[in-house]
Amino acid sequence: MMHARAPLTGRITLVGAGPGAADLLTVRAVRCLHTADIVFYDRLIDAGVLDLIPAATPRVFVGKEVGAHAWPQARIDAAITAAARMGQHVVRLKSGDPSILGRAGEEIAAARAHGIPVTVIPGITAASAGAARLCQPLTERGMTERVTLATATCRPGQDWAGLDAVAIPGTTIALYMGMLRLPEVTASLRRAGLDDDAPITILSCIETASEARLDTTVGTLVTDVAASGIAHPAVIYITVPQTATAPVSRAMAHSA
Amino acid sequence: MMHARAPLTGRITLVGAGPGAADLLTVRAVRCLHTADIVFYDRLIDAGVLDLIPAATPRVFVGKEVGAHAWPQARIDAAITAAARMGQHVVRLKSGDPSILGRAGEEIAAARAHGIPVTVIPGITAASAGAARLCQPLTERGMTERVTLATATCRPGQDWAGLDAVAIPGTTIALYMGMLRLPEVTASLRRAGLDDDAPITILSCIETASEARLDTTVGTLVTDVAASGIAHPAVIYITVPQTATAPVSRAMAHSA
Repeated sequence: MMHARAPLTGRITLVGAGPGAADLLTVRAVRCLHTADIVFYDRLIDAGVLDLIPAATPRVFVGKEVGAHAWPQARIDAAITAAARMGQHVVRLKSGDPSILGRAGEEIAAARAHGIPVTVIPGITAASAGAARLCQPLTERGMTERVTLATATCRPGQDWAGLDAVAIPGTTIALYMGMLRLPEVTASLRRAGLDDDAPITILSCIETASEARLDTTVGTLVTDVAASGIAHPAVIYITVPQTATAPVSRAMAHSA
Repeated sequence: MMHARAPLTGRITLVGAGPGAADLLTVRAVRCLHTADIVFYDRLIDAGVLDLIPAATPRVFVGKEVGAHAWPQARIDAAITAAARMGQHVVRLKSGDPSILGRAGEEIAAARAHGIPVTVIPGITAASAGAARLCQPLTERGMTERVTLATATCRPGQDWAGLDAVAIPGTTIALYMGMLRLPEVTASLRRAGLDDDAPITILSCIETASEARLDTTVGTLVTDVAASGIAHPAVIYITVPQTATAPVSRAMAHSA
């Protein structure tokens, strides 16, 4: 006897993989990987993170490697929704936190357009992981009362707006994707009124074996980066203290 | 035969507990709790999180309960450093992410003043956990290119600066500790040029059994919150799209 086949009901979970180290996923994220039928993953996902996926679970790399092209976002959207529509639990494993500078909105919209249930499991974003490594909180009572996570990327054909508007007193800026725009970062911070000796800290390859740190200033940013060889991916930390006209170093502020 | 006793070398680890759910700690945080000799924990740490601490491990509540007083920060600093100086591995379990609006800097400075090694394990901050629950990313390509995590608390005797300077086009604001300053939030956003119908989403008690959501606007914030009974702790999400003179709703922007 034949039965009409009910529509298959798959689902999509966007999972934050954190900055790189396998033990910086949440417990919920690790458990989710064990229930996935298929995993689509980014570049910047360390091998140790992939080892958390059961060996029998298919995985698809959708990121970019040197000399190769990344999947366009639309192709990722199509692939994850197609798999979910076949009834699979699709895990979209994204570096960092899906909600922060991760284009999760497009994947959520694609799922919803097909009526596919979608959930998000948060991850540790690079700014937070880097602050922990540096033992330098993103807010410091009396010095900064907010943190702005910003990107130096922009859409094709657009100019980057710079940090002029966000480099206001009482702010820590954690700049993502900024290593290719360092002259613009410096110019922007000068326009915002920061002194050339205002401190900047860069942490690259956070929570990986290649992690590197550079302490520099607004005035020496470009030359120090070139001399050190520190490179993308990195978070650039800029502190604009409450007393913005005379920025103090983090060290001085700590002892105050 | 008597030996001179070597100085005991304890250490302090600041551990992010995330927003409330026990499965939103990182794997590293959970493992760390198993190596602690003593745990000092905040309010807002759910019972499920405390269950991750081995039963034999002493734990000390340093937060505030209704009708009682929180430990002053200086007393917390003194307690954790005293325990570490007795050779213990002290875990300071803090809700959210220690690096974001958590006064971790004071605890790090106290440890360093005593020569005690200190490390930080990041946690999921409330803004990130809430965005995941809402399936509303904190940045949306073409609409927002940065997210600012801000607080409405300020030091005794100081006025809150408001959101005037941070409510700039292309920004999502995640406001912590804002539920007692709603009229000031509204006034501030109006001064920044937001229309009264600009959308605001509030998520309270994120990732707990009491979680509650309210969708409102700049103009109806105060009355809607009063009518709904939604209360602290909560994150207030405000989106200032690129086209700031005519804010579009998140729903409209999604379909664009």
